[in-house]
Amino acid sequence: MTAAIDFYFDFTSPYGYIAAEKIEAFATQHGRSVNWHPVLLGAIFKITGTQPLVEIPLKGNYSKRDFARTARFLGVPFNFPARFPVSGVAASRVFYVLAKQSHEHAKAYAQAVFRAYFREGRDISSPDVALDLAAAQAHDRAALAAAINEPLLKEEVKRHNDHAIEVGVFGSPYFVIDGEPFWGCDRFDQMERWLAQGPF
Amino acid sequence: MTAAIDFYFDFTSPYGYIAAEKIEAFATQHGRSVNWHPVLLGAIFKITGTQPLVEIPLKGNYSKRDFARTARFLGVPFNFPARFPVSGVAASRVFYVLAKQSHEHAKAYAQAVFRAYFREGRDISSPDVALDLAAAQAHDRAALAAAINEPLLKEEVKRHNDHAIEVGVFGSPYFVIDGEPFWGCDRFDQMERWLAQGPF
Repeated sequence: MTAAIDFYFDFTSPYGYIAAEKIEAFATQHGRSVNWHPVLLGAIFKITGTQPLVEIPLKGNYSKRDFARTARFLGVPFNFPARFPVSGVAASRVFYVLAKQSHEHAKAYAQAVFRAYFREGRDISSPDVALDLAAAQAHDRAALAAAINEPLLKEEVKRHNDHAIEVGVFGSPYFVIDGEPFWGCDRFDQMERWLAQGPF
Repeated sequence: MTAAIDFYFDFTSPYGYIAAEKIEAFATQHGRSVNWHPVLLGAIFKITGTQPLVEIPLKGNYSKRDFARTARFLGVPFNFPARFPVSGVAASRVFYVLAKQSHEHAKAYAQAVFRAYFREGRDISSPDVALDLAAAQAHDRAALAAAINEPLLKEEVKRHNDHAIEVGVFGSPYFVIDGEPFWGCDRFDQMERWLAQGPF
């Protein structure tokens, strides 16, 4: 198996969620694994001077329509959350605690967070909800609740974000395949060709 | 034949150029015609608070890579112009003068402008170049040179832009098919399904 696909996303990104529903099967088809990297777009948008999509005049209305249409196009269940956008900090912290034990467990948790927010409309910015979702996967809720408040863990989450910025991540989803970056859940066609035929 | 596809673009937009190379054959396959509408993104970006793509930190570097890769992916010849971005005002004015006579002539002119800029690197922001390109298609250069300086024509170009903003156009290319908006040269797959099967 060749190098893993790096998958950067924000837990509150609709296109990130749609990509998360597709990337594992896609990678498997091409004999690749996937490394998941939650990021916090809020901090990244301070660098790029960008606003959340839905808050941009004209583009905001289009985006809401395109989120739902793109989900239908790709066969992904999607309900636009009543509270949007929210913060992905709590869920990201839980993710990085779980990732120390097992990246597979962290991935399964990430999928549950995305579905809780973009299918059920649960407020994943609440630390209680973020912990409940981990507890539902048989993780130790009390231990996680303590771990996500450790200053060293908070620093670690920030370091992951700073590293993503160094890599060039400015949006969600953002993929890197053998050094080549692909932004958006509308780049699967180009990623497909890249994986099948190599650089083009 | 059912209603035309509305195609909004800026003459200085790389993705607009790529779309322009694809949209006519695509529409014909689906029994549609295309109405071309040059817009001036500079004025639109003032409303959305957006910067030109290549000037946005992180996103700028990615975009330059993605312009070229997307062109290769779609089989469109592309050379990133030495002067970028420039203004599409002169070419837009010539377009709207020609469009009064014949929309087909205006389209052929638009294709020539795009190719001059994104294949040959000619500075299409120069009124001389914009007029030369029309003259090369057997249009009356002196008459056009006078026409593009008419205050009424300048007003008309502004009215076209204001109308595009009312429609919701915030980027290039932007398509409207039977009332449904599609933004980007990466939405041909969704447009294809929409045209083949109707709303989804």
